[in-house]
Order: sequence, then C-alpha cells, then structure tokens
Amino acid sequence: MGQVISLGAKTGSPANIDALLALTATDMAAVNTAILARAVSHVELIPELAQHLINSGGKRLRPMLTVASGRLCGYDGENHIKLAASVEFMHTATLLHDDVVDESHLRRGRVAARTLWGNEASVLVGDFLLGQAFKMMVEVGSLEALDVLSSAAAIIAEGEVMQLTTARQLATTEDDYLAVINAKTAALFSAAAEVGAIVADRPAGERAALRSYGRNLGLAFQLIDDALDYSGAEDELGKSVGDDFREGKITLPIVLAYRRGSEVDRKFWKRTLEKGDRGDKDLAHAIDLLNRHGALDATVERARHFGAIAVDALGIFPDGDYKPALSDAVNFAINRRG
Amino acid sequence: MGQVISLGAKTGSPANIDALLALTATDMAAVNTAILARAVSHVELIPELAQHLINSGGKRLRPMLTVASGRLCGYDGENHIKLAASVEFMHTATLLHDDVVDESHLRRGRVAARTLWGNEASVLVGDFLLGQAFKMMVEVGSLEALDVLSSAAAIIAEGEVMQLTTARQLATTEDDYLAVINAKTAALFSAAAEVGAIVADRPAGERAALRSYGRNLGLAFQLIDDALDYSGAEDELGKSVGDDFREGKITLPIVLAYRRGSEVDRKFWKRTLEKGDRGDKDLAHAIDLLNRHGALDATVERARHFGAIAVDALGIFPDGDYKPALSDAVNFAINRRG
Repeated sequence: MGQVISLGAKTGSPANIDALLALTATDMAAVNTAILARAVSHVELIPELAQHLINSGGKRLRPMLTVASGRLCGYDGENHIKLAASVEFMHTATLLHDDVVDESHLRRGRVAARTLWGNEASVLVGDFLLGQAFKMMVEVGSLEALDVLSSAAAIIAEGEVMQLTTARQLATTEDDYLAVINAKTAALFSAAAEVGAIVADRPAGERAALRSYGRNLGLAFQLIDDALDYSGAEDELGKSVGDDFREGKITLPIVLAYRRGSEVDRKFWKRTLEKGDRGDKDLAHAIDLLNRHGALDATVERARHFGAIAVDALGIFPDGDYKPALSDAVNFAINRRG
Repeated sequence: MGQVISLGAKTGSPANIDALLALTATDMAAVNTAILARAVSHVELIPELAQHLINSGGKRLRPMLTVASGRLCGYDGENHIKLAASVEFMHTATLLHDDVVDESHLRRGRVAARTLWGNEASVLVGDFLLGQAFKMMVEVGSLEALDVLSSAAAIIAEGEVMQLTTARQLATTEDDYLAVINAKTAALFSAAAEVGAIVADRPAGERAALRSYGRNLGLAFQLIDDALDYSGAEDELGKSVGDDFREGKITLPIVLAYRRGSEVDRKFWKRTLEKGDRGDKDLAHAIDLLNRHGALDATVERARHFGAIAVDALGIFPDGDYKPALSDAVNFAINRRG
C-alpha cells in the first residue's frame, strides 16, 4: 500500500531542511523555552493538556518560518522569538479545536487531547493558548504584527466554517478546496513569514514577498499532506495511510479522482465519503482509483506550482544563508515522504 | 524578435477551437444579431463608437463560453443568447474604460476609440453598453444570473482600482498580480461560464464547476497573453510585441524576471518600468532578460497549472460534443501563438 510518488526536485536543491534547522537552532531553542514558560497556569488541567500537545513532536515549521524570515530580513533583536511562540500557540489551538470538530481520536499518532480530557477542555485550552498568543504579541508591541496575526486567526476560523459547509460534498470544486486550505493552512504560514519582515521593520515589498512565500509554501505543504495521506511512508509523524479517507475528508486527490472517474467510480466515492458507508476493502480500492486516474500525481503537480511561486517570491532578498535555506524548505515540503 | 515558446499540448488534444466554433456557430450568429440590435441609440455618437469596437474583430470568447456552457448543461431555450450578448457588452465597456485609464492609443491594432472620439465619449459609451447589458439581463429575468454578472462587474472595477495601486510597482508579488488578473480578466470568464448553468437551471455543483472552469481558463488566457506580448507572432489580432512594455505594465513575466535577475537587471527594470524612461533598444534588452531568466517559460508553466484545473473542473459533465470542445478551448488558450 502507498505508492511511491516520483518527485525529484527539479531545481537540484536538496530536498531537506537541514540548512534551515541548523540556522534556526539557537532561535528555536529560545522559542521552545518561551512556549514552555507560557503554557503554565494555576488551573492544573491547562499545562497538563498543553504539554501533551507541545510534546507530541511536530516539526514547528510555522514558528521556524517566523524566526528565519526575521533573520533573512537582517533582524538581530529578540522580538521574533515571542512572535514565533505566538504562531505555534495559534497553531496548537487550531489543532485542539480541529480535533473536536472532526471528532478525531488520534493526533500525530498519539491519542488526541479530546479523547483524554474531553471536548470541553480541548475547546477551552485552545482558547487559553490563543489568549496567551495574543498576550505575547501585545508584549512585542507591534500593532502591525498584531494586525497580521489576528487577521490570520479570523481567516483560519472562517476556513473551518467554510470546511463545515463543504464537508462530504463531492461537488466541491478544486477552487473551493483551494479556498479552504488557503484559509485553514496557508493563512498561518503566510502570517508567520510576514511578521518576520514586520519585526525587522522592512518595507512593504519585503513584507509582501514573505507573505507570498508563506502562503504558497503553505498551499504546497497541505497538498503534499493530502497526497501523502494516500501514499506516504507510515510511522513518520505518526500519520498512517488513509486517515483522511477514514474521516471522510474531501481533499484534492478525491476532488480530482471523482471528476476523472466513471459513473461506477462516482458511486463508490458517494457511498464511502458522502454517505460514510466504508468497509475494510474500501481504502485499497480508493487508493487504486486515485492512482488509476493520476489524482495523486496531479496533486503533487499542483503543489509544485505553488512551490515555484514561493521560491520566486524570495528572489528580491539578498543572497546569504537564509534565502537558499528557505528555498530548500519548499523543496523539502514537496519532496518529503511523510 | 519574439522567441518561439515551446508549448506542445500535453494532453494530445488539438490546440484549436474549431470544434467549439462549429458547435456554437448558430448561437453566435444570434448573439451577433443581438449585439448589433442593442448597440443602437438615437444619440448618434453611441452606435458609431460602439460599432467601431464591435467590428474590431475580437474572438468573442466570453459570450462563446456562455452559449457553450448553456448547451453543455442541456439548455435548449433562447435566453443564453441575451446573456451572452450582455457578457460581450460588459467586456466591450471594460475595454473602453481601460483604454482611457491606460491612455492607450491602439486597441486590437486599430486606433483606440478614445483617440478618435475622446476620453469623455469613451467613458460614457462604456456606461451605456453596461446599461444595455443589464437591460438584457433583466429581460431574461433570472435574478441568479443578474447576481453573478453584476457581482462580476463590481469585481472587474475593483480589479482596475487594484491595478492602479500596483501600477509601476516592481515590488508587486506574483500573488498580487494573480489577484489583479483574477478580478480584471478571470471574473468575467467565470461569470460567463456560470450563467450557462444558471440559464439551464442546473444544480449548484454544475454551476460551481463552470465557474471554476471559466475562472481558471481566464487566468491561463491572461497569463499567455502576458507571455505573448513579449514573444508572440505579430499581426494576429493586431497586437504587436512589446505593447505591455511600452505602456509600462507590470505583468507576470516582469514580476519573475525582476525577482530572478541581478542588481544590474533590477536597475534596468526600475528605469524602464517604474520611472518610465524607455529608449529604442530597451525592448530588445527586456526580451533578452525575460528569456535569460526563463520568465516567459515560467509564465506559460503557471498558465498550464490553471489550464489543468479548468479541464478537471469539466469532469463532472456527461461526455458529448461540448465537453471535449470546451476542454480543447483550454489547450487553444495555452498553445496559441497570438
């Protein structure tokens, strides 16, 4: 199960984020300290639940974008650390709320917080983290950064609502789906990168370039996630093949396979995803259909398009260590196997 | 001058719209009759100026989308003719107003209306045509079609204003530029296709599919226009190579070449496009830079992405004559040489 998607970075850049990890190691350690310091509360449940998520081993790609963008813009202060921690808290809050909405039992291969502590606690601790995120932003004192991050928070919530209305709808178009992931995923990537330029007090053109870099990286990242859900290597990050299918999610591979398929195929998709009537052998058949219609390859192709836009967006910045590292991160996002 | 862009339709579909032209010939003759009937007025200047534009030989791609979409949806009435004529009037009005804003002297290789009759007449006759367009829509009596087309009219105007604010700004990102052409060009393509499904009283999924088809075809169409402006065959449609450069327009090839270029290149773009200081040899150098940095090829690649989305959007419709013809129209838009 899980076919190997042939990717091969066209640019010849390495498909890893080693350079970015090395460049941001010191900053990210400081971000980690800030996160741990702010996930505390005298209400016992809060640190307990927050730690569960914080320790569950995400890549921290979003806060890494903030610190790397700040450094790319020549920033040498400390405010990017708090903004990066805010970005991660916003992301964590979204995950908590998402799991409640999606009724998920697993998150990154671990039992979801809501399964251990219940929906109410997950919703409220999410709100707490969002509050802490805004407190840190206020401490930084940049109204522009607050504007960008609070706008992103609103857009993310809008995206969730949008997704509720398109859920289980095979009529969802590719444009509709792109609008959802633009809000749900790309908005935070975009804001995370843009505030790096804001904290460094750089002109509008550089802000816009990083906003565009983040947005398009986010879109590429999410589309590859969607493809990997039907084809990725198991065990990395704890995600297993077929999670989206088991949750009845309409992602781009499904949108494409549905449109490219026969009437018989469409009946299969309607039964399994719209009606939620899924049996043991259905995942294998779904993967077979996705491959037969080139839906996974096409999803990767679409991701490449956004990746190319992200790389071009960086063009205006001076050469140095951060620019190629951020460019490699795009290739990594597209070429990863899990 | 004008390098040949190697395109080669990947799908093997013919890169022409012969099938679409043949299928819509009768309907388009009726659209033409409606257009001529509605471009009349007792105010002498109006028909004179309107005829100038109407006879100037556009492809009438937008109204063709409306009639073909209606037929694709199985419509067998007459209302799609008036809606198609409305779409063409909206487009014509936009051209008139555009020429005033851009201070253009040529349009489709002919002297622009504003050069012959002045700016005031161009603005007002544009308003007249827009009024006639809405009158025809009202006669059709579909509030849904009115909603879609009037929304498009508002978005087009917004796009024009957006372009004013980004004009001569080399800091314009690819996302900014895509937002502009999404509004200026793709919104009308999108509405033109969607009203075909509305007039045929088809469900929301088919409306959304045609909306997506039109939007992405429009984006692909505009991006290829942008590339052809620096590389196309002369004499077709009267456009000549370098028009955008001579008008100082920031299009996607420029956005990319600016980002991919050296500091010396950027000084060249700033002088010629931001400051408007252009000499005789500058166009040749601009084309050389665009080619050297692969900016034209990349623009065509971006267009292919949108074209692929447009083709996939049609997937839900039953096979027949119109579906492959509309699919071929996408390949035509991408592979044309002028």
